[in-house]
Amino acid sequence: MNVKPVITPATTVDFVNGRTRVYAIIGHPIEQVRSPEAITYELRRRGLNAILLPFDVSPQAFDELFSQLLAVENLDGLIITVPHKVRARELCTRVGPLAEISGSASVIARTADSKWVGELFDGMGCIAAIRNRGVTFDRKRVLLLGVGGAGAGIAVEIARQAPAEIHIHDPDGEKAARVMARLSPRFPAQRFSVGMPSLDGVDILINASPVGMLDPTRTPIEASHFPPHLVVMDVITDPAPTRLLRTAEESGCIAVYGREMFDSQIAGACDFLLNTRKIAAADVRFDHALPPVSRCG
Amino acid sequence: MNVKPVITPATTVDFVNGRTRVYAIIGHPIEQVRSPEAITYELRRRGLNAILLPFDVSPQAFDELFSQLLAVENLDGLIITVPHKVRARELCTRVGPLAEISGSASVIARTADSKWVGELFDGMGCIAAIRNRGVTFDRKRVLLLGVGGAGAGIAVEIARQAPAEIHIHDPDGEKAARVMARLSPRFPAQRFSVGMPSLDGVDILINASPVGMLDPTRTPIEASHFPPHLVVMDVITDPAPTRLLRTAEESGCIAVYGREMFDSQIAGACDFLLNTRKIAAADVRFDHALPPVSRCG
Repeated sequence: MNVKPVITPATTVDFVNGRTRVYAIIGHPIEQVRSPEAITYELRRRGLNAILLPFDVSPQAFDELFSQLLAVENLDGLIITVPHKVRARELCTRVGPLAEISGSASVIARTADSKWVGELFDGMGCIAAIRNRGVTFDRKRVLLLGVGGAGAGIAVEIARQAPAEIHIHDPDGEKAARVMARLSPRFPAQRFSVGMPSLDGVDILINASPVGMLDPTRTPIEASHFPPHLVVMDVITDPAPTRLLRTAEESGCIAVYGREMFDSQIAGACDFLLNTRKIAAADVRFDHALPPVSRCG
Repeated sequence: MNVKPVITPATTVDFVNGRTRVYAIIGHPIEQVRSPEAITYELRRRGLNAILLPFDVSPQAFDELFSQLLAVENLDGLIITVPHKVRARELCTRVGPLAEISGSASVIARTADSKWVGELFDGMGCIAAIRNRGVTFDRKRVLLLGVGGAGAGIAVEIARQAPAEIHIHDPDGEKAARVMARLSPRFPAQRFSVGMPSLDGVDILINASPVGMLDPTRTPIEASHFPPHLVVMDVITDPAPTRLLRTAEESGCIAVYGREMFDSQIAGACDFLLNTRKIAAADVRFDHALPPVSRCG
């Protein structure tokens, strides 16, 4: 008599089970994001049973879903991408100083008392990627194109590097002025300017606008050639290289890819997510946001 | 001059990316569920880039989250487990006949017009697991213990097998009577009874109660020994075997494990999830719910 169960062959996967901790990246569209594979890798490298999944959510649906996701008790954090970063910052119970100044949040952690606390990590990753190439900001003149969510965060981090000048251009001139107005009181010794972009005297060019995304023919600044001392960073990850970076490479410039920025911010984002989980919202300290680099001048 | 990007080593995983379709199992607690590894395996075996994750959601938070999850546009379906099956059925735009009769839904699919449509697959899996052991229901007397969410669905599927008699016991006697009252009009030729359980004349014993879950000392029916012709099925997957199944095996009975039931319903659940995604809620046909097996009597 058949008294033993029919044991089915191994018809399971080994990367998810009932004890898996859940993270999500929320954006619209979502197909282009790299956080699922990269942050899942980093969480697993640290020994966690965790997965970060893509969530495609429209702006109309964002607010309600954002608060409702706290009801998923094993969902510990969110990465926020286009177009939700500004709204995410507004909806958080608390945000760190980089989110506060920039007006955007990119990483949202659940606290021990089930609140959302956010911070912006884009700027750190951008500066780290440029510095990883051996480039310093000391006495440099920086041209920043675009101050949407990512760009505003990058502007804060550039200011913390204390370069000789930061020139901000955005097609929305008022937005550029608003970011400068928010930054100036925090960095009183820093020279800022806004207005039409020019490469004259510029040492570091950073594109934080979406121009060139998914389109290898578009470029945020018209130039068939750059001076070879120029360092060119593009936050766009697809295509790689963008037309901007291709021109930079053809000109003999250092060309810093969006992927390098992205990789540079993963560890910081994971630290924030995992540390915040253990403490109440009121007690979260933003230790990653170091005081501004001291200026020579 | 360094003109090529620093390509980082392979620091990604290969099972999730921005194009991954998302599924979730909602329960409370959640750690014990097996759907994440098993259904993810089945979806991937079919060539889909998809993952099913565990979502731990309390009854207080279930209603709002359930409707809000439709806002995640790449989330295509849900598996519902204890204690949410009854509420899930109530909240669906449409349900299939097995969910309708049993009052519970276990698999919820997003339709092409973004509605939730649900059906109950527990019963099918239970009957398939028993039949896979070469057991038929013809002229058999069946004792069913427990008619909560899973048990009610199993009752429907037993009735479709047209055994000689179905005796239903539930600690909540009114619940047992309610299930019988719902079933009788659908299966007018079927003999049903409710009341205290006895093994006299029983051929197939099915435990669909939670007694014995996570506790190897408890059993839903007191017996140190069973007659060897008895077929014993326990829906509980942990421990394996339960005390009930251990007694059955020691008595020389066929002992059908919860894991066999679980495995048997995966393909049907995946078919339902994937087919429903392509059609509007109003057009969903419940082809899996075949007409009742014709009775001899």
